[in-house]
Amino acid sequence: MASKAIPEPISRLIDAFSSLPGVGPKSAARLTYFLLRAPDHVALGLADALKALKAETILCSNCFNIATTDPCSICADTNRDQRTIAVVEEPLDVIALERTGEYRGLYHVLHGVISPVNGIGPDDLKIRELITRVERGTALEVIMATNPGMEGDATANYIRAELAGKGVKVTTLARGLPIGGDIEYADSVTLSRALRGRSEF
Amino acid sequence: MASKAIPEPISRLIDAFSSLPGVGPKSAARLTYFLLRAPDHVALGLADALKALKAETILCSNCFNIATTDPCSICADTNRDQRTIAVVEEPLDVIALERTGEYRGLYHVLHGVISPVNGIGPDDLKIRELITRVERGTALEVIMATNPGMEGDATANYIRAELAGKGVKVTTLARGLPIGGDIEYADSVTLSRALRGRSEF
Repeated sequence: MASKAIPEPISRLIDAFSSLPGVGPKSAARLTYFLLRAPDHVALGLADALKALKAETILCSNCFNIATTDPCSICADTNRDQRTIAVVEEPLDVIALERTGEYRGLYHVLHGVISPVNGIGPDDLKIRELITRVERGTALEVIMATNPGMEGDATANYIRAELAGKGVKVTTLARGLPIGGDIEYADSVTLSRALRGRSEF
Repeated sequence: MASKAIPEPISRLIDAFSSLPGVGPKSAARLTYFLLRAPDHVALGLADALKALKAETILCSNCFNIATTDPCSICADTNRDQRTIAVVEEPLDVIALERTGEYRGLYHVLHGVISPVNGIGPDDLKIRELITRVERGTALEVIMATNPGMEGDATANYIRAELAGKGVKVTTLARGLPIGGDIEYADSVTLSRALRGRSEF
Protein backbone atom coordinates (compact mmCIF):
# COMPACT_ATOMS: atom_id res chain seq x y z
CA MET A 1 0.00 0.00 0.00
CA ALA A 2 3.06 2.26 0.16
CA SER A 3 2.44 5.17 -2.19
CA LYS A 4 3.32 8.83 -2.37
CA ALA A 5 -0.43 9.47 -2.40
CA ILE A 6 -0.86 8.26 1.19
CA PRO A 7 0.07 10.75 3.93
CA GLU A 8 2.36 9.30 6.59
CA PRO A 9 -0.15 9.37 9.52
CA ILE A 10 -2.53 7.33 7.38
CA SER A 11 -0.01 4.79 6.11
CA ARG A 12 1.27 4.41 9.67
CA LEU A 13 -2.20 3.45 10.93
CA ILE A 14 -2.79 1.18 7.93
CA ASP A 15 0.50 -0.58 8.74
CA ALA A 16 -0.42 -0.87 12.43
CA PHE A 17 -3.80 -2.41 11.61
CA SER A 18 -2.20 -4.72 9.02
CA SER A 19 0.09 -6.14 11.70
CA LEU A 20 -2.94 -7.56 13.53
CA PRO A 21 -3.89 -11.17 12.80
CA GLY A 22 -6.64 -11.55 10.20
CA VAL A 23 -6.45 -7.93 9.05
CA GLY A 24 -5.18 -7.61 5.47
CA PRO A 25 -3.98 -4.39 3.84
CA LYS A 26 -7.39 -3.72 2.28
CA SER A 27 -9.31 -4.06 5.55
CA ALA A 28 -6.63 -2.01 7.28
CA ALA A 29 -7.13 0.81 4.76
CA ARG A 30 -10.90 0.58 5.10
CA LEU A 31 -10.70 0.78 8.91
CA THR A 32 -8.35 3.76 8.70
CA TYR A 33 -10.56 5.73 6.31
CA PHE A 34 -13.59 4.83 8.41
CA LEU A 35 -11.86 6.35 11.44
CA LEU A 36 -10.89 9.45 9.47
CA ARG A 37 -14.55 10.12 8.73
CA ALA A 38 -15.89 9.06 12.14
CA PRO A 39 -16.12 11.53 15.04
CA ASP A 40 -12.79 12.02 16.86
CA HIS A 41 -13.88 10.10 19.95
CA VAL A 42 -14.05 6.80 18.02
CA ALA A 43 -10.32 6.73 17.17
CA LEU A 44 -9.34 8.30 20.50
CA GLY A 45 -11.53 5.87 22.48
CA LEU A 46 -9.85 2.96 20.75
CA ALA A 47 -6.43 4.51 21.46
CA ASP A 48 -7.25 4.89 25.17
CA ALA A 49 -8.59 1.34 25.41
CA LEU A 50 -5.37 0.07 23.84
CA LYS A 51 -3.25 1.97 26.36
CA ALA A 52 -5.33 0.71 29.28
CA LEU A 53 -5.19 -2.89 28.09
CA LYS A 54 -1.77 -3.69 29.52
CA ALA A 55 -1.55 -0.89 32.06
CA GLU A 56 -4.66 -2.04 33.92
CA THR A 57 -4.51 -5.83 33.69
CA ILE A 58 -2.52 -8.42 35.61
CA LEU A 59 -2.41 -12.22 35.83
CA CYS A 60 -4.25 -13.77 38.76
CA SER A 61 -1.53 -15.47 40.83
CA ASN A 62 -3.84 -18.41 41.54
CA CYS A 63 -5.41 -19.31 38.17
CA PHE A 64 -3.30 -17.12 35.81
CA ASN A 65 -6.35 -15.73 34.07
CA ILE A 66 -6.14 -12.09 33.03
CA ALA A 67 -7.67 -9.94 35.73
CA THR A 68 -7.77 -6.51 37.31
CA THR A 69 -7.46 -7.84 40.86
CA ASP A 70 -5.37 -10.58 42.46
CA PRO A 71 -6.93 -13.04 43.15
CA CYS A 72 -9.28 -12.57 40.19
CA SER A 73 -13.04 -12.21 40.61
CA ILE A 74 -13.60 -15.90 39.81
CA CYS A 75 -11.02 -17.21 42.31
CA ALA A 76 -12.35 -14.77 44.94
CA ASP A 77 -15.98 -15.81 44.42
CA THR A 78 -16.81 -18.08 47.38
CA ASN A 79 -20.07 -19.11 45.73
CA ARG A 80 -18.13 -21.02 43.10
CA ASP A 81 -17.29 -24.69 43.48
CA GLN A 82 -13.76 -24.71 44.94
CA ARG A 83 -13.42 -28.45 44.35
CA THR A 84 -13.31 -28.30 40.56
CA ILE A 85 -10.61 -26.78 38.34
CA ALA A 86 -11.00 -26.54 34.55
CA VAL A 87 -7.60 -26.40 32.84
CA VAL A 88 -7.65 -24.31 29.67
CA GLU A 89 -5.06 -23.10 27.19
CA GLU A 90 -6.00 -19.43 26.92
CA PRO A 91 -8.05 -16.72 28.70
CA LEU A 92 -10.47 -16.76 25.73
CA ASP A 93 -11.35 -20.35 26.66
CA VAL A 94 -12.45 -19.15 30.12
CA ILE A 95 -14.86 -16.73 28.45
CA ALA A 96 -16.22 -19.51 26.21
CA LEU A 97 -16.85 -21.77 29.20
CA GLU A 98 -18.39 -18.94 31.25
CA ARG A 99 -20.72 -18.19 28.35
CA THR A 100 -22.28 -21.66 28.67
CA GLY A 101 -23.58 -20.70 32.13
CA GLU A 102 -23.07 -24.36 33.07
CA TYR A 103 -19.76 -24.28 34.83
CA ARG A 104 -19.48 -23.11 38.42
CA GLY A 105 -15.95 -24.25 39.28
CA LEU A 106 -12.57 -22.51 39.04
CA TYR A 107 -10.07 -22.30 36.19
CA HIS A 108 -6.39 -22.70 35.52
CA VAL A 109 -4.98 -20.99 32.43
CA LEU A 110 -1.88 -22.69 30.98
CA HIS A 111 -1.08 -19.88 28.50
CA GLY A 112 -0.33 -22.27 25.67
CA VAL A 113 0.23 -25.94 24.92
CA ILE A 114 3.26 -28.19 24.90
CA SER A 115 4.59 -27.88 21.37
CA PRO A 116 8.07 -29.26 20.65
CA VAL A 117 7.89 -27.85 17.08
CA ASN A 118 7.59 -24.35 18.51
CA GLY A 119 10.08 -25.04 21.30
CA ILE A 120 7.43 -24.85 24.02
CA GLY A 121 7.94 -27.34 26.86
CA PRO A 122 6.00 -27.94 30.10
CA ASP A 123 8.14 -25.38 31.94
CA ASP A 124 7.01 -22.59 29.59
CA LEU A 125 3.42 -23.10 30.72
CA LYS A 126 1.67 -22.76 34.08
CA ILE A 127 1.78 -26.54 34.65
CA ARG A 128 4.10 -26.55 37.69
CA GLU A 129 1.77 -23.95 39.26
CA LEU A 130 -1.22 -26.24 38.62
CA ILE A 131 0.44 -29.21 40.33
CA THR A 132 1.34 -27.06 43.36
CA ARG A 133 -2.18 -25.65 43.43
CA VAL A 134 -3.69 -29.15 43.41
CA GLU A 135 -1.24 -30.39 46.09
CA ARG A 136 -1.99 -27.51 48.44
CA GLY A 137 -5.63 -26.88 47.59
CA THR A 138 -9.10 -28.25 47.91
CA ALA A 139 -9.57 -29.56 44.37
CA LEU A 140 -11.22 -32.96 43.94
CA GLU A 141 -11.57 -32.87 40.16
CA VAL A 142 -9.42 -31.41 37.40
CA ILE A 143 -11.23 -31.08 34.06
CA MET A 144 -8.85 -31.04 31.11
CA ALA A 145 -10.39 -28.48 28.75
CA THR A 146 -7.49 -28.09 26.32
CA ASN A 147 -8.35 -27.92 22.62
CA PRO A 148 -9.15 -31.29 21.04
CA GLY A 149 -6.22 -32.03 18.78
CA MET A 150 -2.68 -33.32 18.88
CA GLU A 151 -1.01 -30.63 20.99
CA GLY A 152 -3.96 -30.10 23.34
CA ASP A 153 -4.27 -33.86 23.89
CA ALA A 154 -0.53 -34.27 24.46
CA THR A 155 -0.61 -31.44 27.01
CA ALA A 156 -3.63 -32.99 28.76
CA ASN A 157 -1.90 -36.39 28.85
CA TYR A 158 1.23 -34.85 30.33
CA ILE A 159 -0.75 -33.11 33.06
CA ARG A 160 -2.80 -36.24 33.79
CA ALA A 161 0.45 -38.18 34.36
CA GLU A 162 1.81 -35.42 36.62
CA LEU A 163 -1.39 -35.42 38.69
CA ALA A 164 -1.43 -39.19 39.15
CA GLY A 165 -1.49 -40.11 42.83
CA LYS A 166 -2.32 -36.60 43.98
CA GLY A 167 -5.83 -37.57 45.03
CA VAL A 168 -7.78 -35.79 42.28
CA LYS A 169 -10.01 -37.20 39.59
CA VAL A 170 -8.84 -36.06 36.14
CA THR A 171 -11.57 -35.79 33.51
CA THR A 172 -11.75 -34.44 29.98
CA LEU A 173 -14.47 -32.72 27.94
CA ALA A 174 -16.55 -35.08 25.79
CA ARG A 175 -15.53 -35.52 22.17
CA GLY A 176 -18.18 -36.13 19.53
CA LEU A 177 -20.28 -34.54 16.83
CA PRO A 178 -20.81 -30.81 17.28
CA ILE A 179 -24.45 -29.78 17.66
CA GLY A 180 -25.80 -28.60 14.34
CA GLY A 181 -23.01 -30.51 12.60
CA ASP A 182 -23.54 -32.86 9.70
CA ILE A 183 -22.45 -36.52 9.85
CA GLU A 184 -21.86 -36.41 6.10
CA TYR A 185 -19.21 -33.73 6.57
CA ALA A 186 -17.76 -34.86 9.91
CA ASP A 187 -14.08 -35.78 9.72
CA SER A 188 -13.40 -39.45 10.39
CA VAL A 189 -11.45 -38.83 13.61
CA THR A 190 -14.42 -36.98 15.13
CA LEU A 191 -16.81 -39.63 13.86
CA SER A 192 -14.68 -42.46 15.34
CA ARG A 193 -14.65 -40.65 18.69
CA ALA A 194 -18.42 -40.15 18.49
CA LEU A 195 -18.88 -43.87 17.79
CA ARG A 196 -16.62 -44.99 20.63
CA GLY A 197 -18.27 -42.54 23.01
CA ARG A 198 -21.84 -43.45 22.07
CA SER A 199 -24.37 -43.61 24.89
CA GLU A 200 -27.72 -45.32 25.37
CA PHE A 201 -30.57 -43.44 23.69
CA MET B 1 -19.67 -10.71 25.11
CA ALA B 2 -20.46 -8.98 28.38
CA SER B 3 -19.56 -11.36 31.18
CA LYS B 4 -18.29 -11.13 34.73
CA ALA B 5 -15.34 -13.22 33.53
CA ILE B 6 -14.01 -10.41 31.33
CA PRO B 7 -12.04 -7.68 33.13
CA GLU B 8 -13.18 -4.15 32.25
CA PRO B 9 -10.02 -3.05 30.33
CA ILE B 10 -10.45 -6.10 28.09
CA SER B 11 -14.17 -5.73 27.48
CA ARG B 12 -13.62 -2.04 26.78
CA LEU B 13 -11.12 -2.84 24.00
CA ILE B 14 -13.35 -5.62 22.65
CA ASP B 15 -16.22 -3.12 22.48
CA ALA B 16 -14.01 -0.51 20.80
CA PHE B 17 -12.87 -3.00 18.15
CA SER B 18 -16.45 -4.24 17.67
CA SER B 19 -17.57 -0.71 16.81
CA LEU B 20 -15.37 -0.79 13.69
CA PRO B 21 -17.01 -1.83 10.42
CA GLY B 22 -16.51 -5.49 9.53
CA VAL B 23 -15.23 -6.45 12.99
CA GLY B 24 -17.60 -8.78 14.83
CA PRO B 25 -17.44 -9.56 18.56
CA LYS B 26 -15.42 -12.74 17.96
CA SER B 27 -12.75 -11.04 15.85
CA ALA B 28 -12.71 -8.19 18.37
CA ALA B 29 -12.00 -10.64 21.19
CA ARG B 30 -9.32 -12.40 19.16
CA LEU B 31 -7.59 -9.09 18.35
CA THR B 32 -7.72 -8.07 22.01
CA TYR B 33 -6.21 -11.30 23.28
CA PHE B 34 -3.60 -11.18 20.54
CA LEU B 35 -2.57 -7.73 21.77
CA LEU B 36 -2.49 -8.94 25.39
CA ARG B 37 0.11 -11.55 24.45
CA ALA B 38 2.04 -9.39 21.98
CA PRO B 39 4.91 -7.14 23.13
CA ASP B 40 3.71 -3.82 24.61
CA HIS B 41 4.85 -1.75 21.62
CA VAL B 42 2.28 -3.39 19.33
CA ALA B 43 -0.76 -2.08 21.25
CA LEU B 44 0.96 1.20 22.09
CA GLY B 45 2.10 1.74 18.50
CA LEU B 46 -1.46 1.26 17.31
CA ALA B 47 -2.68 3.68 20.00
CA ASP B 48 -0.17 6.33 18.91
CA ALA B 49 -1.04 5.91 15.23
CA LEU B 50 -4.72 6.37 16.11
CA LYS B 51 -3.99 9.58 17.99
CA ALA B 52 -1.84 10.94 15.16
CA LEU B 53 -4.46 10.12 12.53
CA LYS B 54 -6.60 13.19 13.06
CA ALA B 55 -4.05 15.36 14.82
CA GLU B 56 -1.64 15.28 11.89
CA THR B 57 -3.92 15.27 8.84
CA ILE B 58 -5.84 18.02 7.07
CA LEU B 59 -7.85 18.35 3.86
CA CYS B 60 -6.07 19.88 0.86
CA SER B 61 -7.95 23.13 0.15
CA ASN B 62 -7.62 22.54 -3.59
CA CYS B 63 -8.56 18.86 -4.15
CA PHE B 64 -9.93 17.96 -0.68
CA ASN B 65 -7.83 14.83 -0.47
CA ILE B 66 -6.48 13.99 2.99
CA ALA B 67 -3.00 15.37 3.33
CA THR B 68 -0.33 16.59 5.74
CA THR B 69 0.37 19.77 3.77
CA ASP B 70 -1.84 22.32 2.01
CA PRO B 71 -1.76 22.10 -0.99
CA CYS B 72 -1.22 18.35 -0.88
CA SER B 73 1.78 16.68 -2.47
CA ILE B 74 -0.21 15.79 -5.60
CA CYS B 75 -1.57 19.31 -6.17
CA ALA B 76 1.89 20.76 -5.48
CA ASP B 77 3.62 18.41 -7.94
CA THR B 78 4.32 20.52 -11.03
CA ASN B 79 5.30 17.40 -12.98
CA ARG B 80 1.68 16.27 -12.96
CA ASP B 81 -0.73 17.12 -15.73
CA GLN B 82 -2.56 20.23 -14.48
CA ARG B 83 -5.11 20.03 -17.31
CA THR B 84 -6.85 16.87 -16.07
CA ILE B 85 -8.93 16.41 -12.90
CA ALA B 86 -10.26 13.01 -11.84
CA VAL B 87 -13.36 13.38 -9.65
CA VAL B 88 -13.62 10.61 -7.04
CA GLU B 89 -15.93 9.88 -4.12
CA GLU B 90 -13.39 9.09 -1.42
CA PRO B 91 -9.67 9.42 -0.59
CA LEU B 92 -9.36 5.62 -0.95
CA ASP B 93 -10.27 6.01 -4.63
CA VAL B 94 -7.25 8.30 -5.10
CA ILE B 95 -5.02 5.57 -3.75
CA ALA B 96 -6.60 3.00 -6.10
CA LEU B 97 -6.02 5.25 -9.13
CA GLU B 98 -2.46 6.07 -8.05
CA ARG B 99 -1.75 2.38 -7.73
CA THR B 100 -2.41 1.87 -11.45
CA GLY B 101 0.61 4.08 -12.19
CA GLU B 102 -1.30 5.22 -15.32
CA TYR B 103 -2.77 8.50 -14.16
CA ARG B 104 -0.67 11.65 -14.03
CA GLY B 105 -3.37 14.30 -13.56
CA LEU B 106 -4.89 15.86 -10.46
CA TYR B 107 -7.84 14.79 -8.30
CA HIS B 108 -10.95 16.20 -6.71
CA VAL B 109 -12.41 14.31 -3.76
CA LEU B 110 -16.18 14.78 -3.32
CA HIS B 111 -16.35 13.07 0.09
CA GLY B 112 -19.48 11.13 -0.77
CA VAL B 113 -22.21 10.87 -3.39
CA ILE B 114 -25.57 12.51 -3.82
CA SER B 115 -27.95 10.25 -1.93
CA PRO B 116 -31.48 11.54 -1.26
CA VAL B 117 -32.21 8.41 0.82
CA ASN B 118 -29.44 9.37 3.22
CA GLY B 119 -30.29 13.07 3.04
CA ILE B 120 -27.07 13.95 1.19
CA GLY B 121 -27.49 16.65 -1.44
CA PRO B 122 -24.97 18.38 -3.75
CA ASP B 123 -24.23 21.03 -1.12
CA ASP B 124 -23.01 18.37 1.33
CA LEU B 125 -20.24 17.41 -1.09
CA LYS B 126 -17.29 19.31 -2.57
CA ILE B 127 -19.18 19.94 -5.85
CA ARG B 128 -19.40 23.73 -5.61
CA GLU B 129 -15.64 23.77 -4.97
CA LEU B 130 -15.08 21.66 -8.10
CA ILE B 131 -17.08 24.07 -10.30
CA THR B 132 -15.14 27.07 -8.92
CA ARG B 133 -11.88 25.20 -9.42
CA VAL B 134 -12.75 24.47 -13.06
CA GLU B 135 -13.90 28.06 -13.68
CA ARG B 136 -10.73 29.59 -12.28
CA GLY B 137 -8.23 26.90 -13.20
CA THR B 138 -6.40 25.33 -16.09
CA ALA B 139 -8.41 22.13 -16.43
CA LEU B 140 -9.31 20.94 -19.93
CA GLU B 141 -10.74 17.56 -18.97
CA VAL B 142 -12.73 16.36 -15.98
CA ILE B 143 -12.81 12.57 -15.63
CA MET B 144 -15.81 11.34 -13.65
CA ALA B 145 -14.41 8.47 -11.57
CA THR B 146 -17.34 7.96 -9.19
CA ASN B 147 -18.34 4.38 -8.43
CA PRO B 148 -20.34 2.70 -11.21
CA GLY B 149 -23.84 2.37 -9.80
CA MET B 150 -26.97 4.38 -9.25
CA GLU B 151 -25.70 6.99 -6.78
CA GLY B 152 -22.28 7.37 -8.39
CA ASP B 153 -23.86 7.75 -11.84
CA ALA B 154 -26.44 10.26 -10.58
CA THR B 155 -23.68 12.31 -8.96
CA ALA B 156 -21.60 12.20 -12.17
CA ASN B 157 -24.63 13.27 -14.23
CA TYR B 158 -25.31 16.17 -11.88
CA ILE B 159 -21.71 17.37 -12.10
CA ARG B 160 -21.65 16.97 -15.91
CA ALA B 161 -24.72 19.22 -16.15
CA GLU B 162 -23.13 21.79 -13.82
CA LEU B 163 -19.94 21.82 -15.90
CA ALA B 164 -21.76 22.30 -19.22
CA GLY B 165 -20.53 25.40 -21.05
CA LYS B 166 -17.49 25.84 -18.79
CA GLY B 167 -15.10 24.86 -21.56
CA VAL B 168 -14.03 21.47 -20.21
CA LYS B 169 -14.47 18.01 -21.69
CA VAL B 170 -16.24 15.71 -19.23
CA THR B 171 -15.40 12.00 -19.57
CA THR B 172 -16.15 8.89 -17.56
CA LEU B 173 -14.25 5.69 -16.82
CA ALA B 174 -15.07 2.81 -19.18
CA ARG B 175 -17.68 0.28 -18.06
CA GLY B 176 -17.34 -3.34 -19.08
CA LEU B 177 -16.24 -6.78 -17.98
CA PRO B 178 -13.62 -6.75 -15.23
CA ILE B 179 -10.32 -8.37 -16.22
CA GLY B 180 -10.23 -11.95 -14.95
CA GLY B 181 -14.03 -11.91 -14.74
CA ASP B 182 -16.25 -14.59 -16.14
CA ILE B 183 -18.94 -13.81 -18.74
CA GLU B 184 -20.99 -16.67 -17.32
CA TYR B 185 -21.18 -14.92 -13.95
CA ALA B 186 -21.32 -11.30 -15.12
CA ASP B 187 -24.50 -9.47 -14.11
CA SER B 188 -26.66 -8.47 -17.04
CA VAL B 189 -26.22 -4.71 -16.51
CA THR B 190 -22.45 -5.05 -16.78
CA LEU B 191 -22.80 -7.36 -19.77
CA SER B 192 -25.17 -4.91 -21.56
CA ARG B 193 -22.69 -2.09 -20.96
CA ALA B 194 -19.85 -4.27 -22.26
CA LEU B 195 -21.88 -5.05 -25.40
CA ARG B 196 -22.79 -1.45 -26.05
CA GLY B 197 -19.22 -0.33 -25.45
CA ARG B 198 -17.64 -3.02 -27.65
CA SER B 199 -14.67 -1.95 -29.78
CA GLU B 200 -13.06 -3.31 -32.93
CA PHE B 201 -10.76 -6.25 -32.24
